[in-house]
Amino acid sequence: MVSNDNCTKISSAERFAKTGHHGLVVWLTGLSGAGKTTLAVSVERMFFESGYRTFLLDGDLLRTGLCSDLGFGDPARHENARRAGTVSRLMVDAGLLCFTALITPFRSDRLRARNLQPPESFLEVYVNAPLAVCEQRDVKGLYRRARANEITDFTGISSVYEPPESPDVEVRTDLLSIESSSAVIRASVEKRLRLLSANLKSNAGQATGGALVP
Amino acid sequence: MVSNDNCTKISSAERFAKTGHHGLVVWLTGLSGAGKTTLAVSVERMFFESGYRTFLLDGDLLRTGLCSDLGFGDPARHENARRAGTVSRLMVDAGLLCFTALITPFRSDRLRARNLQPPESFLEVYVNAPLAVCEQRDVKGLYRRARANEITDFTGISSVYEPPESPDVEVRTDLLSIESSSAVIRASVEKRLRLLSANLKSNAGQATGGALVP
Repeated sequence: MVSNDNCTKISSAERFAKTGHHGLVVWLTGLSGAGKTTLAVSVERMFFESGYRTFLLDGDLLRTGLCSDLGFGDPARHENARRAGTVSRLMVDAGLLCFTALITPFRSDRLRARNLQPPESFLEVYVNAPLAVCEQRDVKGLYRRARANEITDFTGISSVYEPPESPDVEVRTDLLSIESSSAVIRASVEKRLRLLSANLKSNAGQATGGALVP
Repeated sequence: MVSNDNCTKISSAERFAKTGHHGLVVWLTGLSGAGKTTLAVSVERMFFESGYRTFLLDGDLLRTGLCSDLGFGDPARHENARRAGTVSRLMVDAGLLCFTALITPFRSDRLRARNLQPPESFLEVYVNAPLAVCEQRDVKGLYRRARANEITDFTGISSVYEPPESPDVEVRTDLLSIESSSAVIRASVEKRLRLLSANLKSNAGQATGGALVP
């Protein structure tokens, strides 16, 4: 077997030329029941149907697969967030819009997930509903079980949630409909994608006179 | 926030309708230096340039990111393979051809990775070169260090490699060029993709009279 210089890895510029858009992590953080996965599903569908390449990574999917070996204490939550961040990065490298819906209660973990991505390629969405509202919704019956001490380390009840101090986007899901919340997030994603494209054109312009970018 | 029945997750059939091909894991196993990543890069490029949606996941990428917490003893190798298998599954769910180039020395781990995928969605490629050839190549200088006991648990020297008993494809990279090896793998991937499409059409035909599949 001899080496072959034509065999180089696919670059992000090559992927961009095929897809017409950048990879981006849209990271939805918030309490259980705030509406993270619901909104991720809704916004992913908008982009998917508009021709974007998308993926949805949510807490349940991670917990039943990649992170099935982890518990819910603080160290396990850090590791869960770390793995979610690295997988999101792989999705970005694959050229996808990756919607990652995960409680991620700690600011430090969200910052680390941001720092794992290329510049400007992480959009933090705070899916905000008051604890009382989330508890009243209790779609999965988890709050009831947490109050009954059947579940320990439950975010908002027996484990901390650190709200984002300056999220890229915030939606109050107790005040807005799914449609309105989705529209707010969609607008932010589109704005960020335009920024990423402008940056690429600017960088390509400096390097090549602007001829390479479609 | 009220629920919205129009917001459902993207199904694999919807992704297929957009991409025109199935997701598939092409899992390249073999000794260090056998040519796994080289061939994965080469074959990925063939499919990428033909319009397929692709991704390459190799041992170095995993070890510097998702699996940076793992060592090289047997339990760590099992966990490394488990994570690679689950991430490969996520890539398949995203509709991609995922080329996973990883020593994966244990048969049980490769079988588990196969069982994590949808039916027929795992193609095991044995990248086979004799140990002496791999050691002579020693592209990364690792065999020299392993012989000098500077690296422990090195596959083929101080740690076992269990060759596949019935791989889906085998290429002898000491006998074939990169181009010939790549062509063999490419043909197998194409054949498997045709099988997956035929299965989908057959299933859709049973369910709907065959009207749904493009």
